[in-house]
Amino acid sequence: MAVGTSSGIPSTPLLKDEVDIVIPTIRNLDFLEMWRPFFQPYHLIIVQDGDPRKTITVPDGFDYELYNRNDINRILGPKAACISFNDSTCRCFGFLVSKKKYVFTIDDDCFVAKDPSGKEINASEQHIKNLLSPSTPFFFNTLYDPYREGADFVRGYPFSLREGVPTAVSHGLWLNIPDYDAPTQLVKPHERNTRYVDAVITVPKGALFPMCGMNLAFNRELIGPAMYFGLMGDGQPIRRYDDMWAGWCVKVICDHLGLGVKTGLPYIWHSKASNPLVNLKKEYHGIHWQEEVIPFFQAVSLPKKCTTPQECYMELSKQVKEKLGKVDEYFNKLADAMVTWIEAWDELNPSEKLSNVSAE
Amino acid sequence: MAVGTSSGIPSTPLLKDEVDIVIPTIRNLDFLEMWRPFFQPYHLIIVQDGDPRKTITVPDGFDYELYNRNDINRILGPKAACISFNDSTCRCFGFLVSKKKYVFTIDDDCFVAKDPSGKEINASEQHIKNLLSPSTPFFFNTLYDPYREGADFVRGYPFSLREGVPTAVSHGLWLNIPDYDAPTQLVKPHERNTRYVDAVITVPKGALFPMCGMNLAFNRELIGPAMYFGLMGDGQPIRRYDDMWAGWCVKVICDHLGLGVKTGLPYIWHSKASNPLVNLKKEYHGIHWQEEVIPFFQAVSLPKKCTTPQECYMELSKQVKEKLGKVDEYFNKLADAMVTWIEAWDELNPSEKLSNVSAE
Repeated sequence: MAVGTSSGIPSTPLLKDEVDIVIPTIRNLDFLEMWRPFFQPYHLIIVQDGDPRKTITVPDGFDYELYNRNDINRILGPKAACISFNDSTCRCFGFLVSKKKYVFTIDDDCFVAKDPSGKEINASEQHIKNLLSPSTPFFFNTLYDPYREGADFVRGYPFSLREGVPTAVSHGLWLNIPDYDAPTQLVKPHERNTRYVDAVITVPKGALFPMCGMNLAFNRELIGPAMYFGLMGDGQPIRRYDDMWAGWCVKVICDHLGLGVKTGLPYIWHSKASNPLVNLKKEYHGIHWQEEVIPFFQAVSLPKKCTTPQECYMELSKQVKEKLGKVDEYFNKLADAMVTWIEAWDELNPSEKLSNVSAE
Repeated sequence: MAVGTSSGIPSTPLLKDEVDIVIPTIRNLDFLEMWRPFFQPYHLIIVQDGDPRKTITVPDGFDYELYNRNDINRILGPKAACISFNDSTCRCFGFLVSKKKYVFTIDDDCFVAKDPSGKEINASEQHIKNLLSPSTPFFFNTLYDPYREGADFVRGYPFSLREGVPTAVSHGLWLNIPDYDAPTQLVKPHERNTRYVDAVITVPKGALFPMCGMNLAFNRELIGPAMYFGLMGDGQPIRRYDDMWAGWCVKVICDHLGLGVKTGLPYIWHSKASNPLVNLKKEYHGIHWQEEVIPFFQAVSLPKKCTTPQECYMELSKQVKEKLGKVDEYFNKLADAMVTWIEAWDELNPSEKLSNVSAE
């Protein structure tokens, strides 16, 4: 799928007209200066979190659109209720308004990392590489991504599975500050991630994983409607589970639709740990609830008749209400918001409704 | 589980009285010279393949026992039929006669590899590290082995699963010559594995993987009875699927018993690719059959009453006969040999029969 060069080494296409970079923020986007060589070709969708009266400055030379809360309310009307207030969860509004095939979302405290040779890592290029090459969810390859240069399927890998499946999600990692929960932050305040693991792995079918929204790319046509980050922040009992929720939904839907999820490269440099005591308060209910939520997702079964991410997601919202509503009233609200999200998605993306699966 | 040192960095115990190194061979074991600093503390079990009249020399200073075909026939009597002739598959005889808790098996064309810093890799130490720390088959951790120094469980990983499960298998990898099948060898004769991936991963529950016997360690008490390499070589229609067969059996039994399988570090240096045309002949039926064998293993369900590896393995042999017997008569013979193997195991390891699971 990658374009060949005269050297014979496949190069990764830039796809500048097919990728949007979505950034949720509450501050001036000075962090983009460091990303300029990599991000300048792309269109940015900036979702301003918090007070809409605040002006956010974007460094010169970037092509962007910026939405604040007033814009969200104006565009979605009553459906805006499904987009969280005062929480970076609002990033998913950017997924909704994007018209591109691929989305790369990154946090504004993430900087360019270096590989062990000292070379700056082009995160967008690696995400594109991951998304353009297939995934292998049905059988584990011990030499990691078999489609990577210098690698392949090992002896004993069934030939019938070597075509792989389309990749829907590329989950990148973080050097420096690891993505730990509050209890782990409290116990290990000084731990830094210094290990550069030179691998991309398909998360096998049936296995759930903790999807972090800090450095994440996906194929919007294949899985966009399931990339809803839920209700967090102001007026909600939890935060910091937005990306986890999305990840669990996305994974069970990918498993059902025969799509792949990759994790590993690219790394970004995560600059600053958030306050563990504040995080503990934000996470409290989530830590508690995830012990019931994860078995729910591990047991979820979607009916065969669900063949689009929208249909899968609507079915999932029904099961969330049925099975998790009794854990806490919050999950009933969340299940309703999931429905609203799909209504908003279909309203803003009317042409996709029929074509999104057959498009690949 | 690892012993602490004054520097605060956990060191890995040598376990010299708890580990046997099993080596199948047809030649003089000069390759041990390179391993001397690492293997000399351990007891070696050498299983001589092929003509028993040939004398195999072992470098001075190693503590070893050597079994040739005559020994195997003498010790096992009629049950010796379950040990393959003229194939490195005979290594599993070494697993049978070992009296240690852990086995590390390595091929005689595997040498000491170097990590990216140029340091020689102590493969036995890394296998012990893998086997002494738990596995996490029920949920994928994006920062790889959470028990490793400098790593942990990431945000969103359920706390109830952080204790992990006992690790039964440590599957190491290969630099230089990758473990490719004959068709891939033919297509990519010059491909070498140069990528050192600094990671250890638990293969998630429900996912099968291609287990290679070249650089493999396991907890004999937990999973030994399932580590049967099958019928290959002289008089059999296939070769080069011995380790794969063992891996599929081991993985479904580990999943059933709640045990873990790790893959990744340590690397060894695999020196010489075998002849792809010869391999193609050896693999021909296996390549064909695996397309039916793998769906069989993916669908296997073991009854709750099977609580030891022996019981699981006996049940598996029954299902092999029922479901794969119709693929080829070979699988009926293999199913019978699986039963013989367990009988031989129990005969040579009488005290284990009752205690092997509760021993952990």
